Amino acid sequence: MRVANRWLSVDPYMRGRMNDVKSYVPPFQLDAPMDGGAVGDVVESRDPNFAPGDQVFHMAGWRDEAVLPGSALNKLPQLGAPPQAFLANLGLTGATAYFGLFEAASAKEGDIVFVSAAAGAVGSAVVQIAKARGMTVIGSAGGPDKCEFVRSLGADAVIDYKAGPVVKALAEAAPKGIDVYFDNVGGEHLDAAFALARQNARFAICGMIDAYNSGEPMAFRYIMRVIAMRIRLQGFIYTDYLPKMGDFYRDMGGWVASGAVKDRDTIVDGLEQAPDAFLGLFRGANTGKMLVRL
Amino acid sequence: MRVANRWLSVDPYMRGRMNDVKSYVPPFQLDAPMDGGAVGDVVESRDPNFAPGDQVFHMAGWRDEAVLPGSALNKLPQLGAPPQAFLANLGLTGATAYFGLFEAASAKEGDIVFVSAAAGAVGSAVVQIAKARGMTVIGSAGGPDKCEFVRSLGADAVIDYKAGPVVKALAEAAPKGIDVYFDNVGGEHLDAAFALARQNARFAICGMIDAYNSGEPMAFRYIMRVIAMRIRLQGFIYTDYLPKMGDFYRDMGGWVASGAVKDRDTIVDGLEQAPDAFLGLFRGANTGKMLVRL
Repeated sequence: MRVANRWLSVDPYMRGRMNDVKSYVPPFQLDAPMDGGAVGDVVESRDPNFAPGDQVFHMAGWRDEAVLPGSALNKLPQLGAPPQAFLANLGLTGATAYFGLFEAASAKEGDIVFVSAAAGAVGSAVVQIAKARGMTVIGSAGGPDKCEFVRSLGADAVIDYKAGPVVKALAEAAPKGIDVYFDNVGGEHLDAAFALARQNARFAICGMIDAYNSGEPMAFRYIMRVIAMRIRLQGFIYTDYLPKMGDFYRDMGGWVASGAVKDRDTIVDGLEQAPDAFLGLFRGANTGKMLVRL
Repeated sequence: MRVANRWLSVDPYMRGRMNDVKSYVPPFQLDAPMDGGAVGDVVESRDPNFAPGDQVFHMAGWRDEAVLPGSALNKLPQLGAPPQAFLANLGLTGATAYFGLFEAASAKEGDIVFVSAAAGAVGSAVVQIAKARGMTVIGSAGGPDKCEFVRSLGADAVIDYKAGPVVKALAEAAPKGIDVYFDNVGGEHLDAAFALARQNARFAICGMIDAYNSGEPMAFRYIMRVIAMRIRLQGFIYTDYLPKMGDFYRDMGGWVASGAVKDRDTIVDGLEQAPDAFLGLFRGANTGKMLVRL
């Protein structure tokens, strides 16, 4: 199949692929196109399972067109959502939020949930999913505009991490402590979560964007509370839970259809803007999912 | 009952009770005797369930004699072991090793296990239990004498953490990486475990003696590997698993009886030596369990 890409996914995990080390995905290769999530339209097909005009998801992003075998393509499920949603709440972003919350962190109704980078792609999905399931949600974001956005998603309390120490703000926002922490950033946020964790708290460790570029060691003052509070930390990638994608499409499809979970994308136009869009992730230039439209 | 204490347990967790903060056991009170594990002989009884001469375990240690109701006493199980064993491998020390390894870390035959403070009370039990269950064991200890002791317990490899960076030594001792880390110290050892963890590694977080006195933040260079390797950390206290004490007495009683697990105690004589014995824990003065004999 020849596929004309329409939307490219811009994600923090790609930073890890720029280090020449073994990880859960192989490093990008020099002088080769970068891979990444994309949706596009089939324009030419030699496979009877695909016809021109089919909308497909694949991992050969960051290029205008891709030539791929049928095994590398997935037709978009018919859930009444726009195609770019399959890179956001109905794609790896939403699946990361969903499986991190319910599987890695075993979150359940009534839990008090803290989520960092709550105005980001995954974080904003976590806020909405947790509210849809009857949890209390405290989100952290940088600056008044993003905090207002997180509040608009339904968060019960919002922390502006640029305004002062996170641990102090979290102690005020969660006087009873937290049951779940969904970590997108590491560092000071993770330490604050250690400080405020209640007994048997569960932390889903999804990302540590604070350190992707610096590579600096992270210092923790409250990590010893892991013992007294019997905290469980679980690192995860959404692909660990692929056998449960049916649950995800059922629940998330329902929430998207009902409006309980909404996409808010930051969109840039043109392939040549993709590198800047990527760099923007690390200075917080995005609200919600960062996408490139071709 | 009036009980004459014969043996007192000296444990690192007691340091935590000297801070006036809420934790899993209440803080020690000023001008009151310190509590702690002890075994002794009943010398006077008004309860038909106990008779003078009965050997009992209780938590009213750090005193010559204790007056207690029957509900605070446990008769020592008849397992053919000396009474002080119920403060060591057949007591909270052994139960901490057993439940940390099999419950918190889900360790199983064939796993590669790294344990810090492997010459200490809990650590030396972990080494022996893990070997008894067919695991490969790498132990860390400070100085050649303790390393030799850990080797004598059956460890497959031993790291002298005083001889150089732990991460370098662990990379050499575990070229394939580790599946399980049993943490007694935190800090540099925990960071090395992050660095060498294989996919789906499980860490039982039992103690962080490195920080009990300093209170300094701990810095981690490799904590980001939690995500790529899907590491699980679980803080625990052995009392979390009290309903499974039957399993513990069955397995540990068998290993003690067969000689697969041996006690090696550091014994000091006299109640007046107890404070020095306690302080000694933090400079590594003990090999195996630290006990006070009265």
